[in-house]
Amino acid sequence: MSTPIRLGIVGATGQVGTEMRRIVADRQLPISEVRLFASARSAGEQLECCGQTVTVEDVATADYRGLDIVLFAAGATTSRHYAPLFAAEGAIVVDNSSAWRMDPEVPLVVSEVNPSALDHIAKGIVGNPNCTTMAVMPVLRPLHDEAGLVAVVASTYQAVSGAGRAGVDELWNETRFAAERDAPALTFDGGAIEFEAPSVFPRTVLFNVIPEAGVFVDDERLETVEEHKFRDESRKILDIPSLRVSTTCVRVPVFTGHSLALTMQFANPLSVERATELLRHAPGVELKAVPTPHDAAGTDPSYVGRIRPSDVFENGLSLFVVNDNLRKGAALNAVQIAEELIRRR
Amino acid sequence: MSTPIRLGIVGATGQVGTEMRRIVADRQLPISEVRLFASARSAGEQLECCGQTVTVEDVATADYRGLDIVLFAAGATTSRHYAPLFAAEGAIVVDNSSAWRMDPEVPLVVSEVNPSALDHIAKGIVGNPNCTTMAVMPVLRPLHDEAGLVAVVASTYQAVSGAGRAGVDELWNETRFAAERDAPALTFDGGAIEFEAPSVFPRTVLFNVIPEAGVFVDDERLETVEEHKFRDESRKILDIPSLRVSTTCVRVPVFTGHSLALTMQFANPLSVERATELLRHAPGVELKAVPTPHDAAGTDPSYVGRIRPSDVFENGLSLFVVNDNLRKGAALNAVQIAEELIRRR
Repeated sequence: MSTPIRLGIVGATGQVGTEMRRIVADRQLPISEVRLFASARSAGEQLECCGQTVTVEDVATADYRGLDIVLFAAGATTSRHYAPLFAAEGAIVVDNSSAWRMDPEVPLVVSEVNPSALDHIAKGIVGNPNCTTMAVMPVLRPLHDEAGLVAVVASTYQAVSGAGRAGVDELWNETRFAAERDAPALTFDGGAIEFEAPSVFPRTVLFNVIPEAGVFVDDERLETVEEHKFRDESRKILDIPSLRVSTTCVRVPVFTGHSLALTMQFANPLSVERATELLRHAPGVELKAVPTPHDAAGTDPSYVGRIRPSDVFENGLSLFVVNDNLRKGAALNAVQIAEELIRRR
Repeated sequence: MSTPIRLGIVGATGQVGTEMRRIVADRQLPISEVRLFASARSAGEQLECCGQTVTVEDVATADYRGLDIVLFAAGATTSRHYAPLFAAEGAIVVDNSSAWRMDPEVPLVVSEVNPSALDHIAKGIVGNPNCTTMAVMPVLRPLHDEAGLVAVVASTYQAVSGAGRAGVDELWNETRFAAERDAPALTFDGGAIEFEAPSVFPRTVLFNVIPEAGVFVDDERLETVEEHKFRDESRKILDIPSLRVSTTCVRVPVFTGHSLALTMQFANPLSVERATELLRHAPGVELKAVPTPHDAAGTDPSYVGRIRPSDVFENGLSLFVVNDNLRKGAALNAVQIAEELIRRR
């Protein structure tokens, strides 16, 4: 029986922070004390967490002492500044932002995939992967262990909630706006509706798909941050530095659930039957013939289907994965890392 | 100056047939007579075409004589039965269905890509490719000519109008239904709305993506008809029988405009700069940094962007393509084939 821990959540009022509070309670983490942090704007609010009513503290002025594990659901800038302050006072920070993920001294962990990376937490900080990466790691791990993953081509279908609550609001506002218009203008030309200028996404996302998720990383506008994250984080989590990855990240008008079409090359032959058998028993994975975001939303597993051979590669295989980007893709995995840390105390 | 032709359109009252009537008029084809055909249900209707008011004839009982070119915008069953009857009376049929495309005696033509295939019209029938194939042929042709295409991985983002007017109605009805509900239920769980059972698509398509476009071709449910078409038609049109193709066809909540994320392998090196230069001058292609269906809807070109190297293949390249699936993807190409046939008379 583990000793109850003192838990902190930074960014507790946001979309992912709200999920974290819900999941910590659902999974009955052994908690003796919970403290919630947010920006000055939300400080003073009363929030429920684990059956307690907690007053939100301003993270800028809070006392960082006296916590065992702190879950960060804030942006990278906040995390870069405050995570070391909590860690310096003895807490282990599990950070959902991109701030620390590629730091060689920071383990980047998917709970079912590489928990042993938690053996070395040099800086007191653990990284939680990007939601797109997260969706496929529990799927790629057993296939890689069996046949040796060499290359991945990934096309994503990413939900608007990956861009935060503002992304959700933008799609919802566009939906109501469109529904008030006449159908005929739409039938042949989705562009015929003059939407107000979008603010969260570079284009109207309703009835559209946008092959630009996150900003471009260079002046040539060749790849986006999201595409780089998927490649770099996959290599780190699976520990395949030479993994060849080609990703196209596309925003789609879906509220919750990131999907990916994957075509993979393996070093050794891997049949559809064997891959299916491996995935049937893989933790965090559920088989479904034709998985969609509506199946995944509100649930934990990565749903996998459309498993079939691909002849573009020697030892090639294709499949389709969907995962709730707010649960496993963010809040759930952070809580699962906390559980693993508790087991190891 | 070409002699005016006698034109027929079968399926004139449908979605694609309506586009054909519009495009034939817009492009001012030299027409001396136009006749419109449909099923018995629509026979007797008065429709405008090329400035004339035309009474729709029942295709089952019509006189098939006296036409030079007949555009078929009907289903495969109708086409299999009636196309040979028109052809037997001397007309050249340009068929938009899948009925004849893979017949070795039937040329399958994209007007900018392989017009010389029209040199041999053994059966009096010419095939118009599937809209998904069509979108990328004008893009792949110049790249293949330059560097030798070896393999293609394609993930599609296909509009509901690809499933006909009923697909459009289904997405529109779901949109109005959702807009009448409260936003909060949606924000975390798109599946929280209890839609009525969809009839056109296997799942609710609003706020969802469905990796099942067209029926599965075999009992193992490994690949769909749409995925087979893309592979087989690409090989035939580009005349690369050994082309390796891996496709995942996905329906998305977009009214008009099929998108594809492509990653390609070439026999010889092909730089981003050279590919961009080739595509800048390719007929039927327009460059756009981040193309979306809203750009393509209602226009003719295949828009190409996100051109970048891919290291999953030797000589690899990735890009994103969008094309209006009802215009170039169906009606426009059929009319362009007719124009080419007129030039050759």
